[in-house]
Amino acid sequence: MNQSLEDRFKQVRSQSEQFCESLEVEDFGLQAMPETSPAKWHLAHTSWFFETFIIKAFNSNYTSQWPGFEVLFNSYYNSIGEQHPRAERGLLSRPTVRDVLNYRADITNRMLDLLQEGDEEVARLTELGLHHERQHQELFFTDLKYNFSRNPTWPAYRSDRPESADNSLTHEWLEYGGGEASMGHNGEGFCFDNETPGHKVLLQDFAIASQLVSNGQYLQFMTDDGYRRPELWLADGWATVQDQRWQHPLYWHQVDGEWFEFTLYGLIPLDLNRPVTHISGYEADAYCRWADCRLPTEFEWERAAQEATFGGQLLEQDIVHPWHNTPGQLFGSAWQWTSSAYGPYPGFRADPGAVGEYNGKFMANQLVLRGGSCVSAGDHIRASYRNFFYPPDRWQFTGIRMAKWL
Amino acid sequence: MNQSLEDRFKQVRSQSEQFCESLEVEDFGLQAMPETSPAKWHLAHTSWFFETFIIKAFNSNYTSQWPGFEVLFNSYYNSIGEQHPRAERGLLSRPTVRDVLNYRADITNRMLDLLQEGDEEVARLTELGLHHERQHQELFFTDLKYNFSRNPTWPAYRSDRPESADNSLTHEWLEYGGGEASMGHNGEGFCFDNETPGHKVLLQDFAIASQLVSNGQYLQFMTDDGYRRPELWLADGWATVQDQRWQHPLYWHQVDGEWFEFTLYGLIPLDLNRPVTHISGYEADAYCRWADCRLPTEFEWERAAQEATFGGQLLEQDIVHPWHNTPGQLFGSAWQWTSSAYGPYPGFRADPGAVGEYNGKFMANQLVLRGGSCVSAGDHIRASYRNFFYPPDRWQFTGIRMAKWL
Amino acid sequence: MNQSLEDRFKQVRSQSEQFCESLEVEDFGLQAMPETSPAKWHLAHTSWFFETFIIKAFNSNYTSQWPGFEVLFNSYYNSIGEQHPRAERGLLSRPTVRDVLNYRADITNRMLDLLQEGDEEVARLTELGLHHERQHQELFFTDLKYNFSRNPTWPAYRSDRPESADNSLTHEWLEYGGGEASMGHNGEGFCFDNETPGHKVLLQDFAIASQLVSNGQYLQFMTDDGYRRPELWLADGWATVQDQRWQHPLYWHQVDGEWFEFTLYGLIPLDLNRPVTHISGYEADAYCRWADCRLPTEFEWERAAQEATFGGQLLEQDIVHPWHNTPGQLFGSAWQWTSSAYGPYPGFRADPGAVGEYNGKFMANQLVLRGGSCVSAGDHIRASYRNFFYPPDRWQFTGIRMAKWL
Amino acid sequence: MNQSLEDRFKQVRSQSEQFCESLEVEDFGLQAMPETSPAKWHLAHTSWFFETFIIKAFNSNYTSQWPGFEVLFNSYYNSIGEQHPRAERGLLSRPTVRDVLNYRADITNRMLDLLQEGDEEVARLTELGLHHERQHQELFFTDLKYNFSRNPTWPAYRSDRPESADNSLTHEWLEYGGGEASMGHNGEGFCFDNETPGHKVLLQDFAIASQLVSNGQYLQFMTDDGYRRPELWLADGWATVQDQRWQHPLYWHQVDGEWFEFTLYGLIPLDLNRPVTHISGYEADAYCRWADCRLPTEFEWERAAQEATFGGQLLEQDIVHPWHNTPGQLFGSAWQWTSSAYGPYPGFRADPGAVGEYNGKFMANQLVLRGGSCVSAGDHIRASYRNFFYPPDRWQFTGIRMAKWL
Repeated sequence: MNQSLEDRFKQVRSQSEQFCESLEVEDFGLQAMPETSPAKWHLAHTSWFFETFIIKAFNSNYTSQWPGFEVLFNSYYNSIGEQHPRAERGLLSRPTVRDVLNYRADITNRMLDLLQEGDEEVARLTELGLHHERQHQELFFTDLKYNFSRNPTWPAYRSDRPESADNSLTHEWLEYGGGEASMGHNGEGFCFDNETPGHKVLLQDFAIASQLVSNGQYLQFMTDDGYRRPELWLADGWATVQDQRWQHPLYWHQVDGEWFEFTLYGLIPLDLNRPVTHISGYEADAYCRWADCRLPTEFEWERAAQEATFGGQLLEQDIVHPWHNTPGQLFGSAWQWTSSAYGPYPGFRADPGAVGEYNGKFMANQLVLRGGSCVSAGDHIRASYRNFFYPPDRWQFTGIRMAKWL
Repeated sequence: MNQSLEDRFKQVRSQSEQFCESLEVEDFGLQAMPETSPAKWHLAHTSWFFETFIIKAFNSNYTSQWPGFEVLFNSYYNSIGEQHPRAERGLLSRPTVRDVLNYRADITNRMLDLLQEGDEEVARLTELGLHHERQHQELFFTDLKYNFSRNPTWPAYRSDRPESADNSLTHEWLEYGGGEASMGHNGEGFCFDNETPGHKVLLQDFAIASQLVSNGQYLQFMTDDGYRRPELWLADGWATVQDQRWQHPLYWHQVDGEWFEFTLYGLIPLDLNRPVTHISGYEADAYCRWADCRLPTEFEWERAAQEATFGGQLLEQDIVHPWHNTPGQLFGSAWQWTSSAYGPYPGFRADPGAVGEYNGKFMANQLVLRGGSCVSAGDHIRASYRNFFYPPDRWQFTGIRMAKWL
Repeated sequence: MNQSLEDRFKQVRSQSEQFCESLEVEDFGLQAMPETSPAKWHLAHTSWFFETFIIKAFNSNYTSQWPGFEVLFNSYYNSIGEQHPRAERGLLSRPTVRDVLNYRADITNRMLDLLQEGDEEVARLTELGLHHERQHQELFFTDLKYNFSRNPTWPAYRSDRPESADNSLTHEWLEYGGGEASMGHNGEGFCFDNETPGHKVLLQDFAIASQLVSNGQYLQFMTDDGYRRPELWLADGWATVQDQRWQHPLYWHQVDGEWFEFTLYGLIPLDLNRPVTHISGYEADAYCRWADCRLPTEFEWERAAQEATFGGQLLEQDIVHPWHNTPGQLFGSAWQWTSSAYGPYPGFRADPGAVGEYNGKFMANQLVLRGGSCVSAGDHIRASYRNFFYPPDRWQFTGIRMAKWL
Repeated sequence: MNQSLEDRFKQVRSQSEQFCESLEVEDFGLQAMPETSPAKWHLAHTSWFFETFIIKAFNSNYTSQWPGFEVLFNSYYNSIGEQHPRAERGLLSRPTVRDVLNYRADITNRMLDLLQEGDEEVARLTELGLHHERQHQELFFTDLKYNFSRNPTWPAYRSDRPESADNSLTHEWLEYGGGEASMGHNGEGFCFDNETPGHKVLLQDFAIASQLVSNGQYLQFMTDDGYRRPELWLADGWATVQDQRWQHPLYWHQVDGEWFEFTLYGLIPLDLNRPVTHISGYEADAYCRWADCRLPTEFEWERAAQEATFGGQLLEQDIVHPWHNTPGQLFGSAWQWTSSAYGPYPGFRADPGAVGEYNGKFMANQLVLRGGSCVSAGDHIRASYRNFFYPPDRWQFTGIRMAKWL
């Protein structure tokens, strides 16, 4: 098991660096809005996590060679101390990319030494650190995309865009009976504290769509004046539409009457059969109201996912845009907004210590998303996994799966 | 029944005017923030509601003598049409108070004529209109208070402040067993659409405090550095504390080392035994975390309220500040924040037509509050009643009832 | 002389009250932007000026019956002490209009007693206080107009709109030879400190337009894409046009293809022959560039005014909108933007004491305007008078007089 | 002459690149506020200037190999076309540093070819372009400094900090008699349009300080509560002090009771004898009021400079911080705020064509600064040179020279 952990540690750490290989040095520092951290920051912060919570904690005479980093790369852990302002991460030309890669190598080596010792708590926290790094790998992609999107020359992160997928719509519904259902983590393998405690909920009969909403379906909503009809929107959503002048998903652009989509492959023609993505929770909700359906609750989604075959378009498929929309596949391609506010399960207690700031303190004003996306690693996603974003957020790979009462 | 409706109609309408009797003409127009409408606006808008949804709807050849009012006093009904900007209600010196009282009299008389005809739909909508006016009566008090609070001369709305109440703390917990519990309106009498459909939920064993948190208890939280310890706060709450420089409840003031509270009776000494009020949902949550408890869910609260005797300090007691804190009394004095996000019940459908904008479209980013306050009418409050505000809101009569797992 | 001062004191004080006679009580408290104070505040502040700088100063055992007013009605005199925030003047429903009128009467009576004593310094400061009140009378009109303009029902302050004036354009230029010219106050009668010291400047030959720019001329600028051509604008002006989406003067409205103007007489058809007004310094500058001319410097204007007959449409004509545009008349109707930044004359020293904050501290970022407007009293205006506003300001009665080199 | 122009062209162009030699690639893209452009942008924009105004204009069949650059690197020339938003220059990781250096080389080569042809208008515009590049060299230093200043690790641009200078204060005044004085460019050599036409002004007798205000003098102002006494400040200055919480010059930091200054040599101890720098026009004005003096007008400064020996600490001295404070030296070390608003000279006409946007359109809301700084090239500065910034601006090398009446 420790052997395997060590191997996975090496793999995850080196993947983070491989993902950066096609970047120019200049790209590593971009931060186009407070929410989208620079690639360099992600590389450093994930190392900071191992250094702070494991190396420092299990090595009483450890002295960091990277003293300023404690503040610079602390994301939001008040228990650890002061934090460099989130909105100013893009102003840090120093440490350089080279410095950060050296930092990574140093931390990786120290961790490998520590893992040799076989301490169980170290192993548990390393597991947490790897899942943490998986999350930042996903953010690396979505943040980079947003940061590139503000450049009028449309930089492409990769050039190996795949062929069009066969994504015909079946318009099928998957039906489920109501009654008591078990929710939360089942106890096998890793989970975050927010998936616990396992507990039961009461569901009513419901159906959930067999596929994600496609670009073509979403375009019908748009041409039916979806962005101009207040009755389709939550009040806060409508206010956001007016204030932000939203008229289409985040990265759509109309050029000479044709729709294009900015992707990590550059600006490409909109494929009507791909899943719609980069929409806010408000847009997801409005689309469903227009379609006379609704978003699923997080429990309905989890109930359906418990029966589904795990798979779908995840990071391992190596396509950095939602491409596939397979009937009956609950996982992958795009995170699915639910109607559930992100909150604690009955009896929830945050993990002890500073890592307890990981999840619990964000349980306000956000919605739960389920299922993983094209840049979520397969070893990181499961039926009980709860992602969370604010309803107006659009820069993640987010999509729509409809639900309805039976 | 129609006779009785007519009497209640007269009573509610005339109460709205009576509440204004101690105001100066200058007071009627104040709007100190977008959320707090002028007294004059409340008087007009509640009339607009009857005119728009009943008089116009059931009287095909009706021509309003108040043509501009359709836009001026439309709060947020997009189906009806354009709305004067909410933040600019305080800029309307015309129509004058006299004009608005004339408008009220005209609408009241027309409604009384219409009620004579005994139409059932008119009766149903009149019932809704009266509950609507009850809500605006409550807002009249809380908005006026906020608007007065920005005047350094501390205007007093009333001068008949009652004696101190006997509010000794019992520190008792009311315990409830888990299992299936019925939630939502039971079908008797009026309810809003958001209390339906009735449905069952699964609860776990829990306890709920027999009394509201007192000023004295809250002061202990403050002196224990409650506003300076991020670990006690939700992340969004902590950001708000920093940004708004919160250090105490909204209307508390320290003068020469002594605490005072601005109330509708003017600035008065803080009574440690009264319930704490004018706190945000973030402060309520942080207080509970400090006390090693938690806020109840809206369902736990409703479960407890179903067994409780209805009563408590409501509008009929005619004390315009939370004064009493009676053990075992679930209702009145101050609205109680729950940890539940305001959302639709399973199978929820908004009322048809424009009145469907009343509740459903606000089901995002808000928390449910339960129980009513010192300025909620007794005929308006019930166990299934769901009020809702944003977590940072503080200008309502809001308080804390703690809960815990068993 | 003291007799005459006393009479003028009575006259100016009572005029301030007469101007308010057509107002509703509700109108007195309006403040639609930080710059536009409520009518009630002007009535109180002008009294505060006499109380603070004269009654308190020359009456060592005076105790104000209006203690809170020292802070409430201090505009910007840091030497006196704290000030109620300017932007919140509209939130003061108390003191009421009745209270403020009582305050005025009290101060007026005390001043009349004091004037009896014949102290010269009292006389000097009373003179200053009367000119101060003249300025606030002018602001009363312009602030009220702006405050009314945000009400979609277009309240009219007065209903006695005069007939159209005969304002035919002569397109004449008044020419002046260059050389040394004396600027500043000539020493007779009252002046503000900013008009001193008298000094000489060197002028070049120039010409100044015999009339103000008319609405019709300005409309030509608009129809020639004046608001869409950046080359006509100062950079800061163009940024303001974009940011504020300016497309016409402040109070112009197009209804069914016809232009109207909101005035203190309500919304009235635009008369092409009246002087254009309520334009910013940026618009004045852009208009002149479009017309291949320029704004005069304040010294050119003063040079021309020294030779002109004093007169024009001033407050005494009792028309509360720029109505007349008489050839050769330098004064009245609308304040005329100059290209001169508001600064100190060579050797300038502010008045000693707190009244020294009157003018000098505003000598940054503002432009000088000259000539007086339809609501400037004739006893208040003179050739050396320097008014000053920020280039983007539009709510004063401001207009354009062109100049050019010879 | 063309030979000499060609040589100077080569020199200026290569200097811009040499100044960047100590930068990391990551440093080239920093933009910490809208006003401070990235180093990379300066390198590109100065090339864009030559390409746009000369190469494209004098080469009808020229096709740019850098098509997107027309928009990306247009600063503010509306006549040329659209501009990439100024505030987003730091978001352009592409084109890379390598791309921009290639762009520079291409433009430099094309310009050298063109200069061979000996066209006079090309020569005139090349001269303008070189002075333009001199200005951007200066901005390169001041922008880089600001951008580095937001990094808590205090990056040093250079490490060769010179010894302390001997800067003893003489407290001498240079006196000048009044009367007519000639202002503006004398016709020899290059000047900007804003230095013309030459004209006469009337001056009064005045004196100007022989040295710049030192850090030590400024510290006295601070310890005498300079930042806490409103009577010392212009009203807009005081509002800025409150709003921005200014308590000292921009780059001063107090560490354990000792004052330090962030410089391009990193964070270094404050030398009391060096000239104070990085202060706003408001601070300069307040300091003078505290010292019972005043700022000079731009004409007083120019009058004094006409008699002074040209020299002082300019770019050629290769010290990138104001270091010297030589008695009687009017030029160099730090730009000197004047009390003069930046405006047109009598009879001013902007240069024809798009380069006419260079100076004239900024003649609003700014103050004139005179004298050049430690990073102004000696071939770029002269007695008639007018620099201009907004009164609150602090990121330039700005300082104070006092003046007084005689």
